[in-house]
Amino acid sequence: MRIFLWSLHSANNIKQLLSISISQNRLLSAYVRVCAKQNSAPGWGSRRAKNLSRTKLFSLAKMDPKIEEVLAPLRLAVKEQGDAVRKLKEDGATEIDLKKAISLLKAKKKALEDKELSMSPKEDQIDRSRLEDLMKQRFFYDQSFSIYGGVNGLYDFGPMGCAMKANLINEWRKFFILEEHMLEVDCSMLTPEPVLKASGHVDRFSDFMVKDLKNGECFRADHLIEAQFEKLLADKKVPEETKEVIRNTLPQVDGMSKDEMQQEIRKYNMKSPITQNELSDPIEFNLMFGTSIGPAGNIKGFLRPETAQGIFVNFKRLLEFNQGKLPFAGAQIGCSFRNEISPRSGLIRVREFTQAEIEHFCDPTDKSHPKFDSIKDLPVPLYSACNQMDGKPLQLITMGEAVERRLVANQTLGYFMARIYLFMTKCGVDPKRFRFRQHMNNEMAHYACDCWDAETKTSYGWVECVGCADRSCYDLTQHANATGVRLCAEKKLPEPKVIDVVECVTNKGLVGKAFKKEAKAVTEYLSKLNEAEVNSLEKDLTASGESALTIEDKSYTITKEMVTVKRYEKKVHVEEIVPGVIEPSFGIGRIMYSIFEHNFKTRPGDEQRTYISLPPVIAPYKCSVLPLSNNADFQPFVQQISTALRNVDVSHKVDDSSGSIGRRYARTDQIAIPFGVTVDFDTVKSDPPTVTLRERDSCQQVRAPISELPDIIKDLSNHKIEWSDVTAKYPLFEQQENK
Amino acid sequence: MRIFLWSLHSANNIKQLLSISISQNRLLSAYVRVCAKQNSAPGWGSRRAKNLSRTKLFSLAKMDPKIEEVLAPLRLAVKEQGDAVRKLKEDGATEIDLKKAISLLKAKKKALEDKELSMSPKEDQIDRSRLEDLMKQRFFYDQSFSIYGGVNGLYDFGPMGCAMKANLINEWRKFFILEEHMLEVDCSMLTPEPVLKASGHVDRFSDFMVKDLKNGECFRADHLIEAQFEKLLADKKVPEETKEVIRNTLPQVDGMSKDEMQQEIRKYNMKSPITQNELSDPIEFNLMFGTSIGPAGNIKGFLRPETAQGIFVNFKRLLEFNQGKLPFAGAQIGCSFRNEISPRSGLIRVREFTQAEIEHFCDPTDKSHPKFDSIKDLPVPLYSACNQMDGKPLQLITMGEAVERRLVANQTLGYFMARIYLFMTKCGVDPKRFRFRQHMNNEMAHYACDCWDAETKTSYGWVECVGCADRSCYDLTQHANATGVRLCAEKKLPEPKVIDVVECVTNKGLVGKAFKKEAKAVTEYLSKLNEAEVNSLEKDLTASGESALTIEDKSYTITKEMVTVKRYEKKVHVEEIVPGVIEPSFGIGRIMYSIFEHNFKTRPGDEQRTYISLPPVIAPYKCSVLPLSNNADFQPFVQQISTALRNVDVSHKVDDSSGSIGRRYARTDQIAIPFGVTVDFDTVKSDPPTVTLRERDSCQQVRAPISELPDIIKDLSNHKIEWSDVTAKYPLFEQQENK
Repeated sequence: MRIFLWSLHSANNIKQLLSISISQNRLLSAYVRVCAKQNSAPGWGSRRAKNLSRTKLFSLAKMDPKIEEVLAPLRLAVKEQGDAVRKLKEDGATEIDLKKAISLLKAKKKALEDKELSMSPKEDQIDRSRLEDLMKQRFFYDQSFSIYGGVNGLYDFGPMGCAMKANLINEWRKFFILEEHMLEVDCSMLTPEPVLKASGHVDRFSDFMVKDLKNGECFRADHLIEAQFEKLLADKKVPEETKEVIRNTLPQVDGMSKDEMQQEIRKYNMKSPITQNELSDPIEFNLMFGTSIGPAGNIKGFLRPETAQGIFVNFKRLLEFNQGKLPFAGAQIGCSFRNEISPRSGLIRVREFTQAEIEHFCDPTDKSHPKFDSIKDLPVPLYSACNQMDGKPLQLITMGEAVERRLVANQTLGYFMARIYLFMTKCGVDPKRFRFRQHMNNEMAHYACDCWDAETKTSYGWVECVGCADRSCYDLTQHANATGVRLCAEKKLPEPKVIDVVECVTNKGLVGKAFKKEAKAVTEYLSKLNEAEVNSLEKDLTASGESALTIEDKSYTITKEMVTVKRYEKKVHVEEIVPGVIEPSFGIGRIMYSIFEHNFKTRPGDEQRTYISLPPVIAPYKCSVLPLSNNADFQPFVQQISTALRNVDVSHKVDDSSGSIGRRYARTDQIAIPFGVTVDFDTVKSDPPTVTLRERDSCQQVRAPISELPDIIKDLSNHKIEWSDVTAKYPLFEQQENK
Repeated sequence: MRIFLWSLHSANNIKQLLSISISQNRLLSAYVRVCAKQNSAPGWGSRRAKNLSRTKLFSLAKMDPKIEEVLAPLRLAVKEQGDAVRKLKEDGATEIDLKKAISLLKAKKKALEDKELSMSPKEDQIDRSRLEDLMKQRFFYDQSFSIYGGVNGLYDFGPMGCAMKANLINEWRKFFILEEHMLEVDCSMLTPEPVLKASGHVDRFSDFMVKDLKNGECFRADHLIEAQFEKLLADKKVPEETKEVIRNTLPQVDGMSKDEMQQEIRKYNMKSPITQNELSDPIEFNLMFGTSIGPAGNIKGFLRPETAQGIFVNFKRLLEFNQGKLPFAGAQIGCSFRNEISPRSGLIRVREFTQAEIEHFCDPTDKSHPKFDSIKDLPVPLYSACNQMDGKPLQLITMGEAVERRLVANQTLGYFMARIYLFMTKCGVDPKRFRFRQHMNNEMAHYACDCWDAETKTSYGWVECVGCADRSCYDLTQHANATGVRLCAEKKLPEPKVIDVVECVTNKGLVGKAFKKEAKAVTEYLSKLNEAEVNSLEKDLTASGESALTIEDKSYTITKEMVTVKRYEKKVHVEEIVPGVIEPSFGIGRIMYSIFEHNFKTRPGDEQRTYISLPPVIAPYKCSVLPLSNNADFQPFVQQISTALRNVDVSHKVDDSSGSIGRRYARTDQIAIPFGVTVDFDTVKSDPPTVTLRERDSCQQVRAPISELPDIIKDLSNHKIEWSDVTAKYPLFEQQENK
């Protein structure tokens, strides 16, 4: 396997790639895993890897020619509409025309994507209800409070889901925070209103809904209109000309204003799809959970809708902690809350979810990254805005080239994208079902200058798991404006600069005497005047000997004697800048769900035997310990192994229940335990005692001495060694499983 | 040090003690740490440890004779009042008389405790404002949203606090969950009302408050009354007889009913202490944060006030995961919320806090613990209810003896208490400032049968950090009653038992025909009738040929033909039991704060040089890497060491800023970094290259080869080796610090 890598990259690049790793071995194995998976088409074994050329790897982004034939007209339709949008923009068309054209483009893109998804290779398709059954049965996760009837959009993680989540978060912390020396914070979820007013969430974080006027049931307005349109289109009694209008309107629903939606609802006299009752007009519904902090009820607050704001409001403290230097990154792992109108799609759209967010603060005029070279040769699957408009598929391209060609806006954004890719694939996301999709101009937040979503292909379609955006200076500026606190950093000038300073200095004695308690406010106000204001004040004072000030609705008369205007030159070595922000934002639940789907497997020849092939690093337990039977002679060995594993912090499960060994293996496979140790009669007889060690995915077994086990399993669990290293060293063993 | 242990316990006990450890070395060192600290009175060095007898260790619970002299009258006063309470109980006194006596007992206990605290040894007293300054300055934690003016009772953890918290939680997970194979869950914080109605929180989780009638400001009623009483007692104008009444009433305030408080407020015409405005009558204020789930606003919910309920509502799933077997423990680490009326005391009383809770489910008639022997010889500081009533101090006693003497209710409770003690002291709580205080009868929740709080002594007095309660079957019973879902386990009978079964079997055809859609409900209702009900039904049917049933307000007429009553004997092998629950519940923030106080130190001879001596296992960074100066020759070594440390997952901080090495050491000491590596001119010259390794608490330095560093520091960080092991192996070095 490793030879393959050397043919792909020069020795130098590999070294650079590895120099950023937490553990060389671990990242190496992650990288090998990625590459291996990218080439796991049937018949493509690791032995053929030697022959793989760079071109070949890239060509994998291309689709099957038969599929391409089917997609061709759809691709063309997208391209034509994409060109139409471009032309309208060039010609300076009206906003309404442009909006209509973009809506149509969206509809055509969706048709292409739906078709593409429907033709996914069989190995990418899973039986979702079986996976969900397994998740419930083995309590990976399940609906919260179900003994009370349950609440939509709330899930509880059981022992297996919880352990996997903890492992995933620990790995994230190592991979991002420790690796890059990020500054982690852990902030309050309860957030007072002004903070979220400044961030824009109070005004804009909402969906439109309509209410059943009789029973109060709520529907998302856009979903309801779309569903009613689909129904009308399928209705034979609806005249063709009406259908034509509806066909034109349908793609525009997503993105309609409140009034436009209202119009459609009235025009087609839409009712509740469940009760046929009258509906309210669309109501803007803020997705934040409101509460009130403190007993008086006067501090309105919300549960945070994202963890990002906690980092922004702590910017000054973090900058100080970093001794005033840029760049640095803040990070936070924690829970956020969104009161979805109608949550669905299991773990994908929930009301309470764990995020892991990074805010990388840097000089807005210099977004280069010192470690960029270490990832520049990594090929990543990019689905650019341009390709989306052209109806083209995604492309595999090295990150170096992507940044060079300005496809990805800057090195820092590119560096994080590469790291996201390495993290996701290390944790079990299938590289074949992964892409970075760039936001089109029209979907990007107004403050962002580039944004790529890391998406995974699941049975729900492509799902956004990580957003990676260049948010420019938006958030810090908003909070600075709202609070009056300067949220900026000092940047050393290339050369010191001489500037003119105009300053208003007060005579403290006189001001104090004149304004008493308020003297401080007046002095502060005067000291903050800008040049033009000082000049105007000076003019007044020279002309009439006094001037009137108004501070917070109160008037003060300043006399000539109270102030002296000073003008002088000053040499400055630094300038103040508001840092730019690159934000990778991870949805932990969505990543977990994608990993479950991508690793849900069935044993060939036995459709009933499902298992989950999680990478050891995030598997809930690393190892099972199984006595072959309940023979008392096995017990001391089981105890000995369990203690030894605990001493090296390897989580494990002892299963000494009755049931054949094959059945118990199947049970441990279902909870994704990657390795199994079995104590059998040979253990008792051999000296030194040996046991079998089984690997979940291959079902291969080796025989190894008990004394060597803990280190082998620990190293396997940390991806420091691979299973192939074990089979190379220890003899294969082929008995128990068939019993 | 280890010899010391052997003199304390028999070889056998030590082995048992260690057999439960995650890592023998680690627990051993934790235990040594505990014992060492218990004997860290001045002049008590480890060399004297050999001579330590068991008696001597125990005698440490005794106080200084001079202090005891001062406390004697206070102890006597408590004892007299305690005896009075006992007598009243024996005599079957009225509830009011008993309550008054208990209030007085509380007041006398408080006087004793206050006096005791005021005479704490100097080394136990810290300058809280200096500690708080350090916490702010180096951003361990600080008030949330302070650029927006801040919100009381909400705190953000900065990089150092956050890393320490993550380390503490990881350690907790290893020490409890992995060690005992507990089943961890991660449940929703948003909780629908019925769940918290059943748990009792909706009705009882409240405090009384009064409102300023003009500006709406709120005060906790009991605090306000107490403060006004204190003021009146200090007022010279208040007549002595009024003061006498107040003195009698004061100790009763805590525990007054709403009406009683109202009476006092009116009687003394109490006003707002701030504005002197009129006050409202006391209002019951529920401490949960309310919100509404979903857009319709009809699912009333709360933010959970404790993590425990998430475990209880998942009991059935967890039992199933455990293959139906008792005992087992569920655990949860997560955030809980309490809308305190007036939060204060820093991290001690906050509105949003992390808990780690365990619910150990077991047979209520058998609370023995299989690992009890492993901790039975551990001496723990117990402050029993009895000693509290007698005015006696806490006593050091082995857990084995405590359970044998029924001081601690059962083995399982005792086992957890011992584990709590080992965990807390391993993580840096000073054993001299730790005690288990038993709840007195009157303070225990009505459902609990024994409860011990693990308390730490801080500048705020004794603070409850961990509650360890036997909650009996309360919670499961409550949720079962509320939902109709049976929350019980099956227990194998010692011998199979023959029971009489009376069953009502329906004729499905006839019932179906008669009741159509409702047939299922009727059949289910009939099948669930108990013996008496079946008999009564049978009587009706025999007498009149039919009988009327009412199911959910609807009537059904059952005819003779529809049912057959079957009577038969059945051999049963199991019985259903509602498990008993032992609950250790940890407040992570309070533990962190206690650890900060107990490890806040000043260098002898330099009051300005403060540092925090956190144990390596929870220190935010394990190691600093410092070049002696900015000489370019040092850079490659710094890089090499940093990479090597990262490869073994040792968190570290490179500080290559200018400033003398002594100053940089001081800075790393302040953020509790236990080890420091310095690259100097000898590093460049020596072959193989060596560096100095410094230990924070002793300021000792050794010289070691770079190649051996990562493993040394990793083992030190995991407490696998102690600093003394390092100084025994590598030569001491005495230069840099003084530069």
